[in-house]
Amino acid sequence: MALARRLERLGTETAFAVSRAANEWGAQGHRIHPFHLGDIDLPTPGVVTEAMTKAIADGHTGYCPGAGILPLREALADDTNARRGTLYTPDNVVVQPGGKPVITKFLQAVMDEGRRVLYPNPGFPIYESQIEYLGGTAVPYRYLPTDTGFALDLDQIRSLITDRTIAIIYNDLQNPTSAESTQTEREAIAQLAIEHNLWVLSDEAYFETRYAGTSRSIASIEGMAARTVILYTFSKKFAMTGWRLGAAIAPRDVAAVMATMNTNNESCTTHFIQYAGVAGLRGDQSEVRQILGILQGRRDAAYEVLASTKGVHLTKPESTFYLFPDVTDAMALKGIDDVNDFATAALRATGVSFCTRAHFGRSQPGETRDYARFAYSGVPAAGVTQGLTLFKEWIEG
Amino acid sequence: MALARRLERLGTETAFAVSRAANEWGAQGHRIHPFHLGDIDLPTPGVVTEAMTKAIADGHTGYCPGAGILPLREALADDTNARRGTLYTPDNVVVQPGGKPVITKFLQAVMDEGRRVLYPNPGFPIYESQIEYLGGTAVPYRYLPTDTGFALDLDQIRSLITDRTIAIIYNDLQNPTSAESTQTEREAIAQLAIEHNLWVLSDEAYFETRYAGTSRSIASIEGMAARTVILYTFSKKFAMTGWRLGAAIAPRDVAAVMATMNTNNESCTTHFIQYAGVAGLRGDQSEVRQILGILQGRRDAAYEVLASTKGVHLTKPESTFYLFPDVTDAMALKGIDDVNDFATAALRATGVSFCTRAHFGRSQPGETRDYARFAYSGVPAAGVTQGLTLFKEWIEG
Repeated sequence: MALARRLERLGTETAFAVSRAANEWGAQGHRIHPFHLGDIDLPTPGVVTEAMTKAIADGHTGYCPGAGILPLREALADDTNARRGTLYTPDNVVVQPGGKPVITKFLQAVMDEGRRVLYPNPGFPIYESQIEYLGGTAVPYRYLPTDTGFALDLDQIRSLITDRTIAIIYNDLQNPTSAESTQTEREAIAQLAIEHNLWVLSDEAYFETRYAGTSRSIASIEGMAARTVILYTFSKKFAMTGWRLGAAIAPRDVAAVMATMNTNNESCTTHFIQYAGVAGLRGDQSEVRQILGILQGRRDAAYEVLASTKGVHLTKPESTFYLFPDVTDAMALKGIDDVNDFATAALRATGVSFCTRAHFGRSQPGETRDYARFAYSGVPAAGVTQGLTLFKEWIEG
Repeated sequence: MALARRLERLGTETAFAVSRAANEWGAQGHRIHPFHLGDIDLPTPGVVTEAMTKAIADGHTGYCPGAGILPLREALADDTNARRGTLYTPDNVVVQPGGKPVITKFLQAVMDEGRRVLYPNPGFPIYESQIEYLGGTAVPYRYLPTDTGFALDLDQIRSLITDRTIAIIYNDLQNPTSAESTQTEREAIAQLAIEHNLWVLSDEAYFETRYAGTSRSIASIEGMAARTVILYTFSKKFAMTGWRLGAAIAPRDVAAVMATMNTNNESCTTHFIQYAGVAGLRGDQSEVRQILGILQGRRDAAYEVLASTKGVHLTKPESTFYLFPDVTDAMALKGIDDVNDFATAALRATGVSFCTRAHFGRSQPGETRDYARFAYSGVPAAGVTQGLTLFKEWIEG
C-alpha cells in the first residue's frame, strides 16, 4: 500500500535521535548528564495544578469552543497587552495544544504552495519541515557571531526577499543560539515586513524566560499587529511542556481560520487544562519566579564551566535556557572533524549529552564553525557543574 | 493581507451554529433541552481522574514521545486485540489528542491530491471538510432506510469506485444514523477495499457505546489490518470528550508517519492524561458500565417518546447515543418545508434543540426525506422524556 507523496517533504526533530542515543548509553549502566532536550525537570506551579483539579471537579470535562474558553482568551489578551503594549482582544486569541501547532496553522493560513518563507537557521527544525511539507520554499537566514552573542545578517535577509516571499519566521530570544534582537534590529525586520508586505510568525516561546532586561515583541511596533502572529506557549514559563497548552495571538481573520482548523483537527484543546492556564496567568506568581530563579542558577553554573573550557567560546545570554558555544577549537583539540562525532565521543567519555548545530536545520554554504547546544533546563545546578566539568576535563585532558 | 487559497476548501462543523442558536435562545430566559451536541454530561470515571492526579504527582509533566507513552500503546494494543480479535503491537498504536486528529492524519498519510475518497453521507462533517481541504475529491456514499435501521447502498459504493479512488471512510456504528453493518455488509466493504486496493479509515468512535449485541471491526477481517487505520477515542466510552485522548491503530508504516506528524504538529498528546488512559483501559470497569447503563436508559426514554410521535419514524438502534428519525411527515403536519426551519421552530416552541441531516454533509441528489438527529448523551433521562414530550405535543398539537 503506497503512502502519500507529500510525506517525502515531511521533516522531523532529529534531536530525538540524540535522546535515543543517550537513553541507550544510559541503559548500559552509564551515568547520563542530559543537556540535549529543551524540557524542564521542575514541577508545574501548584496554583496551576490545583486549578485543573478544581476544573475537573466543576465538571469541565466536556467539549469547549474550538478557539478556547473565553476566560483563557481574555487572560491571554490581557497578559499579552500588559507585557507587550499591544491592544489585543479575546477575538485575537486562539488556544492551541501547545505552541508548536501555531507554526503549522500559521503556514496553512497564510502560505500558498510555491511561496517562499524565510526562517532562522540554525533554528527550531519544525519551521523548515512544515514550510516544505506544506509545499512552500524554506529559505534559511543566518546569524552572525558578535561580541555579545549572535546578530541577524540583515543584508542577507534583505537579499533573500523576492516577489514570491510571503512570510518571515522570527524567533527573537532564539532557540538554539539564545540570540536576542536589539530594538534597532527588531525594527529593521518590521520595516522589511511592511515594505515587502510579509506576514510574520513571531515565535515568542522564551519571551518570559529572561534573567535580566525586558523582552519586547515585534507585534508592538507600529503597523505590525496586523501582519504578525505571536506563538505563545505555557511550556517554558510555567514548566508545562507536557501539558500541551499554548495559543496563537493573531489578526482577527487569521484567528478565525485557526479556530476553524482547531474544529477540523482536534475539536479543542483539553478543556480543564485551559482553566489551569487562567490560574497560571492570573494567579500568584511566586512559583513562576522560583522557576526562573532556578534556571538562572543553572545558566550561571553552565556558563561558568563552559566559559573556562579550552577551545569553547561563548557569550552569556540573558534569556532562553540554552547555551550555544562555538566548539570548533575544542573539536580540534580532540582531533574530531564532525560535530556529531564530537557529541557521540563526549557522550561516551563523559555521559554529557547535547545537540549540535546539525539538529537545527540544514547547514548553509559558508559555515566554517561548529556549534553545540547545551540545554540546562533539565539538569539541577550541581549536576550542571558536575557534568560540564567532566566535559571540560575531557576536552582539556 | 491575503490568506492562503487552500482555506476556500476548508469546511467545518456547522452543528456549532445550532449550539449558538440554542445558547442565544437560552440566554433570553428560555429553558433549553439540548439534543444537538454529541457531548456527555456525566463525570469521567474516578479511576481515570485519580490516575491523572497521580501521574502529575509522579512528575509526568514534561514531554513524552510523539507516538505516546509505551504503557498506553501497550494497553491500547491489548484492548484492541481482545475486543476485535486482531494482532496489533504497540508499534501499531499512535496516541492522538482525541479521535478527530486521526481523520486529518490518515488523509495526509495516504491521500495524494486529486485522489477520490469515499465517505458516508450523512456522516461526520469533518470527513468531507478534510478530504477537500487536503486536495482530494470527497465522494459521498449513502444509507438506505430499512425496517431495522439504515443499510449501506453497496451497489452505489461499487459504482463510485474509479481508478482514482484511494480510500474509503467507514463508520460502522454510525454518527448520525446509528447504522450498524451486518457482518455480510462489513465483509462486502472489505472485499471492495481488497479488490480495488483501497485504504480504509474505520471510525470506531462508538465501538463500545453499545447496549446489546457485539461490535465487530472491519480490521479483523482477513487481509484488512494491512490496509485499515482504526480511529480509537476515549471520548465516548469514558465520558472524556473534553480530555482529548484518542489513537490511530494502523499498519506500522502509517503509524510511523503519523508519529512524525505528531512531532511536527503538537509534539505529543498531554503526557499525564495518557496515564489516565492506561487506568481507564486496565482499571476497574464499573463506572464505565454505569455510564453505558445511563445512556441506555436515555436511549429507551428518547425512543419511547419519539416512536409514539405522529409523523416521526425511527427504529431503535443498539449503539451510539443518537436517534435519527425521519421527520418528513412531522414537518408536513407543521406545514414546514425546510428541515432547518423545522429545527428553529421546534427550538422556539419547545426549547428542544437538535441537529438535522443538513449538519452532516452536503445533501445528495435524490434525497426526498428529511431527518433530525437527537443526541441523548447530554440530557438526563427525565429531561429526555420531558423535552421530547414537549416536542411531541408541539408536533401533534
